Amino acid sequence: MQKEISFRVYYEDTDAQGIVYHANYLKFCERARSEMLLSQNIGGFSDREYFILRSVQADFISPARLNDIITVHTKALQIGASKVILEQSISLNESTIFLAKVTLAYIKDKKPSRLSEQLREFFISCL
Amino acid sequence: MQKEISFRVYYEDTDAQGIVYHANYLKFCERARSEMLLSQNIGGFSDREYFILRSVQADFISPARLNDIITVHTKALQIGASKVILEQSISLNESTIFLAKVTLAYIKDKKPSRLSEQLREFFISCL
Amino acid sequence: MQKEISFRVYYEDTDAQGIVYHANYLKFCERARSEMLLSQNIGGFSDREYFILRSVQADFISPARLNDIITVHTKALQIGASKVILEQSISLNESTIFLAKVTLAYIKDKKPSRLSEQLREFFISCL
Amino acid sequence: MQKEISFRVYYEDTDAQGIVYHANYLKFCERARSEMLLSQNIGGFSDREYFILRSVQADFISPARLNDIITVHTKALQIGASKVILEQSISLNESTIFLAKVTLAYIKDKKPSRLSEQLREFFISCL
Repeated sequence: MQKEISFRVYYEDTDAQGIVYHANYLKFCERARSEMLLSQNIGGFSDREYFILRSVQADFISPARLNDIITVHTKALQIGASKVILEQSISLNESTIFLAKVTLAYIKDKKPSRLSEQLREFFISCL
Repeated sequence: MQKEISFRVYYEDTDAQGIVYHANYLKFCERARSEMLLSQNIGGFSDREYFILRSVQADFISPARLNDIITVHTKALQIGASKVILEQSISLNESTIFLAKVTLAYIKDKKPSRLSEQLREFFISCL
Repeated sequence: MQKEISFRVYYEDTDAQGIVYHANYLKFCERARSEMLLSQNIGGFSDREYFILRSVQADFISPARLNDIITVHTKALQIGASKVILEQSISLNESTIFLAKVTLAYIKDKKPSRLSEQLREFFISCL
Repeated sequence: MQKEISFRVYYEDTDAQGIVYHANYLKFCERARSEMLLSQNIGGFSDREYFILRSVQADFISPARLNDIITVHTKALQIGASKVILEQSISLNESTIFLAKVTLAYIKDKKPSRLSEQLREFFISCL
């Protein structure tokens, strides 16, 4: 099951080329992950336990521009004991403009830890 | 005595109007304040004690653009028991393009506190 | 008539003090202005005509933190021939945490221009 | 030949986890690429011709924090007719904390174009 959330592109997101500054696509992906976890109320998002980005592989396919409404789609690709690999794509007018594979490590009490059963089940539901 | 520090304008600082995004001038001012305190080694910049911005009055006079080298000039206007008012201007090719008055409160152990003698003397040297 | 719009605070908005980075409150205000104009479909938001920030006076009253939902309230204070002064406040749990007065100049074909009748009427409706 | 440039981590670069916000490592890499091209005066950095990021593969190895001085190291991995693959790593106290492979396309007059001989020679010097 794929999760979706949309955001407006504001001036702050663009650069002098008139398009969204490349690093900001990662911000939109992070917002989507935050909303996904917060909406489930299953933990994974507090001072004590959170996810950190370990790696990202991203393709910048075509640009978004000021005022565009872009949609971040998130699904799980692989669920490990203490990490998860997600695919996050961004679409604009139903075309994919950005595609990323992100590896997240689950941190609890400041160290990599096993995913709780709840988190695990949630990510399985996102496969 | 006025303090000066220069920064390059990168893509990240600009927006789709082709100029520096307005809020980013405040970032350049903050960088200048950080460098000013760090270079003195007189405290005021750690987990335990730091300054927070209480208010700002800023005029956006003319824009900077990609690749410009801009210079932040900082001087003290007024030094209180637990706060300081600074004037920070940004120049480009010797013209002032941004002018701000910022009020900073000194926080120690999470509450507004009296400036140490060292900090006080330093800000007096910036009058 | 006051306009309101709410935003979530994400990691990108916060800094190492654990609170929203001061300059980012200006970003939230700009988002609110963009949405306000876009929702009216009365111009003032294109390559050919737009508003630029001339000055801001802002008080940082208390901080917002990660995951907070903050609301930007915008009303007009004064409407000139080619500029408008807005009051923008940000609230969190019904307390005002940020208060700003922003002066915007209307730019058309690259120079300060008289507000169109439509824009003028809209801002009057925001008084 | 590897190019190096150092930057200070300011508040704006950090987030509420007390570390540099992940997407900002890409900003530091972009700054390094800009300085690299600007310092050579060989084109590739203007309204008419520039590079755009096509893809990135990045490992976030360990975090940088407020006030750290980090160094971006850039070298060329592969030089194509109209694109170049660079390796950019970021080090802190001589440890590598971030490692990326970035693919850049050369754009001239709005379309992917052959690298000029000057740009090509420069990137060869960075192998």
